[in-house]
Amino acid sequence: MLIVGEKINTSRKTVREAVEKRDAAFIKKLAQLQSTAGAHYIDINCGTFINQEEEIIAWLAEVIQDEMDLPLCIDSPNPRAIEAGLRAHRKGQPMVNSISGETARYNAILPLIIEYGCKIVVLCMDDSGIPEDAGSRVTIAAKVIEGLKENGTSENNIYIDPLIQPISTSTENALCAVQTIGMLKESYPGIHGICGLSNISYGLPERKLLNQAFLVMSMAGGMDSVILDPEDTHLMSLLFATETLLNRDPWCGTYIKAYREGRIVKT
Amino acid sequence: MLIVGEKINTSRKTVREAVEKRDAAFIKKLAQLQSTAGAHYIDINCGTFINQEEEIIAWLAEVIQDEMDLPLCIDSPNPRAIEAGLRAHRKGQPMVNSISGETARYNAILPLIIEYGCKIVVLCMDDSGIPEDAGSRVTIAAKVIEGLKENGTSENNIYIDPLIQPISTSTENALCAVQTIGMLKESYPGIHGICGLSNISYGLPERKLLNQAFLVMSMAGGMDSVILDPEDTHLMSLLFATETLLNRDPWCGTYIKAYREGRIVKT
Repeated sequence: MLIVGEKINTSRKTVREAVEKRDAAFIKKLAQLQSTAGAHYIDINCGTFINQEEEIIAWLAEVIQDEMDLPLCIDSPNPRAIEAGLRAHRKGQPMVNSISGETARYNAILPLIIEYGCKIVVLCMDDSGIPEDAGSRVTIAAKVIEGLKENGTSENNIYIDPLIQPISTSTENALCAVQTIGMLKESYPGIHGICGLSNISYGLPERKLLNQAFLVMSMAGGMDSVILDPEDTHLMSLLFATETLLNRDPWCGTYIKAYREGRIVKT
Repeated sequence: MLIVGEKINTSRKTVREAVEKRDAAFIKKLAQLQSTAGAHYIDINCGTFINQEEEIIAWLAEVIQDEMDLPLCIDSPNPRAIEAGLRAHRKGQPMVNSISGETARYNAILPLIIEYGCKIVVLCMDDSGIPEDAGSRVTIAAKVIEGLKENGTSENNIYIDPLIQPISTSTENALCAVQTIGMLKESYPGIHGICGLSNISYGLPERKLLNQAFLVMSMAGGMDSVILDPEDTHLMSLLFATETLLNRDPWCGTYIKAYREGRIVKT
């Protein structure tokens, strides 16, 4: 399971304030905590700084990579900000979140993916928006996957985000997301499924419980990457447990190690 | 999701003592608590009383049905005990746990299922024991299903228990159980999947966490019935959450009602 730590996002007040003060120590600590908690990639998103996004994303990349060796997930819809982040990236293979079937976005971001050899998150939407059903999301994603492959991106570098919409607006939304990944993996066995979890529970009480159940359910359905807060011990414990149940943890070794390190919640 | 409350089992010390004293009030209360917590069937198992099982199972059935209208799950490998329980059963459709592909057991229990029109739990094992792989469990179960159907039992009354073995002995065991149900439902769409959860985590730390993840994962894979402690609020909360995520809870109505009744854990 590939874990992308989501916490360095300027939509969070403490991060915004740290960025405004260029408080490198705060950013480094947040990256380090996520790394210790199990993140494989550190997401950086400063989309709230509309006119400074290029400068700030490069600053975040520099600061974090001064501190540690984890690669970064450059998270922006803005091609110029993505390019600035990629230029500053120097440790391992960068991930970009995201490309989509939207014409302008696709055309602007594809050359960057080729140039920098990134892992790339593909959103299942196009110029008409987000389709309601899994079949239409698959059609959009397949077109983008074919385009990426024609331009030299291997399936192993492609991460499909089916786009998680709240079950409070339609109780079909969770299954729709999971089915989208399942259908695409049948055609493209090398690709990955990725998503953020928390949108699924928007508008409902005890959201964390729903997010927990959705994590397990989507992993069982083929989601093999996730964007989350790795410091959420309960969520991470369920992730370890589910990996073991899905036969991805020989001899239950990772689960038992996590338990011995005090990383499994008391139940 | 059909919920079978597992607590009236004389392998539990308090239940054994209550039965020894013929403490009807204790048994009634245990049944009532499980009913209030959401059980649809009350399991009765007094297998530890080897020479008195017939008498005690009938006593348990009488006592519980004096108190409430829920039907019972007569839980025994002993055909005479099952018959005693069925004779005493008078509210709704009884469930019997279990028949299997073992020749003697099959031949002794089949006539009871026919005579009493029961719901029947089918264990995926035969005279050679429990097979290691899903394919062989499917073969055994299919033979029993065919026999039951030829004798007038509809698929809707058949509950397949794939038999849950600990992942500590083989990390394939959870997937094996879920795959057995998935494969059988392809051939027999009307049947149900049922299991107890707790054996999956035997030998590992923080068993409840693993049981929770296995509940969600098996529900996502087609398990639509479960034998559990309905007073385990965390497990039941995840069950409600997963039902909603699997689009089996229109407008999230059951989940929201459970929350308002204080039956969803704080996370």
